[in-house]
Amino acid sequence: MAQQLRAIRTRGAILHAAAEVFAQHGYHGASIAQILEKAQVTRGALYFHFASKEQLVQGIFAQQVTEQGYPVRTYKLQELVDEAMALACRLPQEIMLRAGAKLAMEPQLQELADGGPWEAWAQRFASMVDAAKRHGEVYPHVAPGDLGRFLVSSWIGAQVVSEVTSDWTDLEGRISSLFAYTLPSVALPAIFAQLEFGPDRGTRVLAEMRADQEEPRLVAERTR
Amino acid sequence: MAQQLRAIRTRGAILHAAAEVFAQHGYHGASIAQILEKAQVTRGALYFHFASKEQLVQGIFAQQVTEQGYPVRTYKLQELVDEAMALACRLPQEIMLRAGAKLAMEPQLQELADGGPWEAWAQRFASMVDAAKRHGEVYPHVAPGDLGRFLVSSWIGAQVVSEVTSDWTDLEGRISSLFAYTLPSVALPAIFAQLEFGPDRGTRVLAEMRADQEEPRLVAERTR
Repeated sequence: MAQQLRAIRTRGAILHAAAEVFAQHGYHGASIAQILEKAQVTRGALYFHFASKEQLVQGIFAQQVTEQGYPVRTYKLQELVDEAMALACRLPQEIMLRAGAKLAMEPQLQELADGGPWEAWAQRFASMVDAAKRHGEVYPHVAPGDLGRFLVSSWIGAQVVSEVTSDWTDLEGRISSLFAYTLPSVALPAIFAQLEFGPDRGTRVLAEMRADQEEPRLVAERTR
Repeated sequence: MAQQLRAIRTRGAILHAAAEVFAQHGYHGASIAQILEKAQVTRGALYFHFASKEQLVQGIFAQQVTEQGYPVRTYKLQELVDEAMALACRLPQEIMLRAGAKLAMEPQLQELADGGPWEAWAQRFASMVDAAKRHGEVYPHVAPGDLGRFLVSSWIGAQVVSEVTSDWTDLEGRISSLFAYTLPSVALPAIFAQLEFGPDRGTRVLAEMRADQEEPRLVAERTR
């Protein structure tokens, strides 16, 4: 059991080191030697977990879209906004997301994620728009698949421009603008008026999630 | 005079070859030797026109945003849509634009264009939105600078995703969607209803421009 735990930790350390090297040097500029040095593991340990550079990329892609328990809201559209804004807040701080964003733009790495690295995310947004539609939150003309793809590509454009021009400092503002220009043609006015998508939305959602995670521990302490 | 004309042609051939090499291999992967071979010029000729790889990039950036006589329309917003849609139609066909799009994403090449390679374009859109605002086409809350930046970054996101997932075949559809989701929150309803932004808009605008260019020749022939 301890051995299995150590293997999981080693795998995580390798993936983290790979993310750092890919984020800095890109896929072609990155070498296994650099990853080994950063992860402080042997070549044998790396190849035990990842047989190739491609498998390292797959490992990073697999960690991009997680449904990690975002809070349930009255409106499905708010849940979509919350995820997109939380991601804008997280990306500059999380090397795994930054590496994934960079690797996703390499044409020859597309087949390493099922349907391409952006597809899972576009589908997730599409299914949220679909749910919003069933709940009567959006105009009848809205096509969930098309809107999901549009939101993902616009998010990516904001990320690319924000990285290059501001080192991501204006990313949350840019994603906030994306919703400000898009939601009025998607959400019914009565719903739109209640949606929150200010630049600080992501930070607040993540703080709320952290507080929710800590709560059970506080309760347990109190019962002791 | 003939010598000057030849120099201009040589410069153009070098820039065109550089665009092909940069578009294929990226900035770091491109070598002066590859460019020389493609342009079929001597190293001396290349260095006479461009003292460095950076100057080649500057030459390519300088050819990105041109105001090349797009037709005047009743609404300024239609002029903006026309330019964005024409560009979506042109980019897959024009190596200079494809190279520019690729080079613009290199963080270390930002200072080779005044204010960054996307800034001139964002400012051009902003000034068109500003004119639309003065003409009473847009809602009073619309901030031209913010909208210009949003349109450029969303256009770029669509381009990046379209290149990687469809080799640009769906780019015009994606830019059409961008306007479908954005214009209703920008244009007054009576104006919005008259704007054309279908996927074939760019093709039609470019055909119109070509017809306009040919017209004077036809007239001249008739007068002969």
